[in-house]
Amino acid sequence: MEIVKVVADMQRRGETLRNQGSRIGLVPTMGYLHEGHASLIRKAKELSDVVVTSIFVNPTQFGPDEDFERYPRDFERDKAIAAKSGADILFCPEPAEMYQEGYRTVVEPGAVSTILEGNIRPNHFRGVAAVVAKLFNITKPHVAVFGQKDAQQAFIIQQMVRDLNFDVLVVVAPIVREQDGLAMSSRNVYLKGDERKNALVLSRSLVHAGERVKTGETSVKKIKEEMLKILSGGNPTSIDYIAFVHLKTFEEAQTIESPDVLIVLAVRFGTTRLIDNAIVSVN
Amino acid sequence: MEIVKVVADMQRRGETLRNQGSRIGLVPTMGYLHEGHASLIRKAKELSDVVVTSIFVNPTQFGPDEDFERYPRDFERDKAIAAKSGADILFCPEPAEMYQEGYRTVVEPGAVSTILEGNIRPNHFRGVAAVVAKLFNITKPHVAVFGQKDAQQAFIIQQMVRDLNFDVLVVVAPIVREQDGLAMSSRNVYLKGDERKNALVLSRSLVHAGERVKTGETSVKKIKEEMLKILSGGNPTSIDYIAFVHLKTFEEAQTIESPDVLIVLAVRFGTTRLIDNAIVSVN
Repeated sequence: MEIVKVVADMQRRGETLRNQGSRIGLVPTMGYLHEGHASLIRKAKELSDVVVTSIFVNPTQFGPDEDFERYPRDFERDKAIAAKSGADILFCPEPAEMYQEGYRTVVEPGAVSTILEGNIRPNHFRGVAAVVAKLFNITKPHVAVFGQKDAQQAFIIQQMVRDLNFDVLVVVAPIVREQDGLAMSSRNVYLKGDERKNALVLSRSLVHAGERVKTGETSVKKIKEEMLKILSGGNPTSIDYIAFVHLKTFEEAQTIESPDVLIVLAVRFGTTRLIDNAIVSVN
Repeated sequence: MEIVKVVADMQRRGETLRNQGSRIGLVPTMGYLHEGHASLIRKAKELSDVVVTSIFVNPTQFGPDEDFERYPRDFERDKAIAAKSGADILFCPEPAEMYQEGYRTVVEPGAVSTILEGNIRPNHFRGVAAVVAKLFNITKPHVAVFGQKDAQQAFIIQQMVRDLNFDVLVVVAPIVREQDGLAMSSRNVYLKGDERKNALVLSRSLVHAGERVKTGETSVKKIKEEMLKILSGGNPTSIDYIAFVHLKTFEEAQTIESPDVLIVLAVRFGTTRLIDNAIVSVN
């Protein structure tokens, strides 16, 4: 596996690969890779000839009081996981290589970046949109694979690709969970003592919602109340949001009628903030 | 010369050309081509194998009270000029092809988009930045040629290319003038009666400034006063701005010391708004 740290080198490498007729797959990550990332890399490998995995803890998508500094990093372990999963190139620039003196341009995804995650993390999706635009221009992928775990991010990137005509196929791959149901996340390492076990209420509440919908319940209000009860059982520090949105628009769903309702939630345990989501189908 | 109207067709065409090893040059225009545009197309031809000229009167860069509807259009004449100047492909999409239902993403160039032209035309540079990003992603150029006539636009595009890592060489080509000095512009056709002759004060004031700097004058205040006197002689409806900025930063220049001071001005004659600029050198 090649390691590339310089933007211009990566651009030349991408250009050469394209000129040779290779299909490039990109998996952007912030590192501290787990089985969820590995599944994205394997998916990209299925869909392309050469997989570029980027590792970049992007400072512009963290708020001033967030965990940028303490975000977990383990480059040697990341290298091993990326290589084993099928990555051919690891692109891992320093922040100063990505954001040069005089950086000004903002990519603003519009209204959807101000709700849910964007409401709690005001400039988060601007940072995400810009860095993904940059990574597209640097690595020149034919296909890019993102995780459904960050559902709102995946929506915003698909919107940006459509709006700005990036010629990149965006693939969103399913959430990977621990055996007990906890969605994999680099931030799970923050969970202390009982928090790890308590955090299972996220996936449990989503499974419950899915079952209730399958048995014919269509009231968002009712299902949300039941989910809140389950979530409260995990003794959370706070429930940032629990929302039912249409998968195609991210607009709030009033009832569960269409097959494309997404339930998204963000909950804190101690100082650790976790997100999870599920698509529920009427059948 | 090929005519392409569909985004996906243009993207495929650009991709095929790149795969064949052709170097693509892009000249984005709003049509109603004149000798200034022709010079950009010839420059692109020098620098590439296949020149794509786009003709798109971009609605998002016009304010609600501006001249989007009446902006001059003459497709048959444009075709002839583009072909004669060396364009190989004319990309001319309809607005609905460029801005699909649900378009949301904004590209905000930051502070420089709020001064001078951006102060008079509040969302102008957002519209410019987004449409140029789109045209880059659609036509896939190696090199793109813009006119120095729109100096602030050229600055903002170079900044966006740097910030978002577009792998495109941006070339800014000099202003082309009528024999009597008027900078060529599609909007010159709006000038009525004496306005055409009066408008010569723009270029005259810039020539005067250049001469004053050559003879050793370094006071921005003094030169600006002299320019204002010349401009007033043209009986303008208003002088929107006259500003001395550093070419590399677009920050206001207090004195003319460095070789890179740009004088930009915008003046109205009747309902017609003209811009012009010149770089002045101490020598």
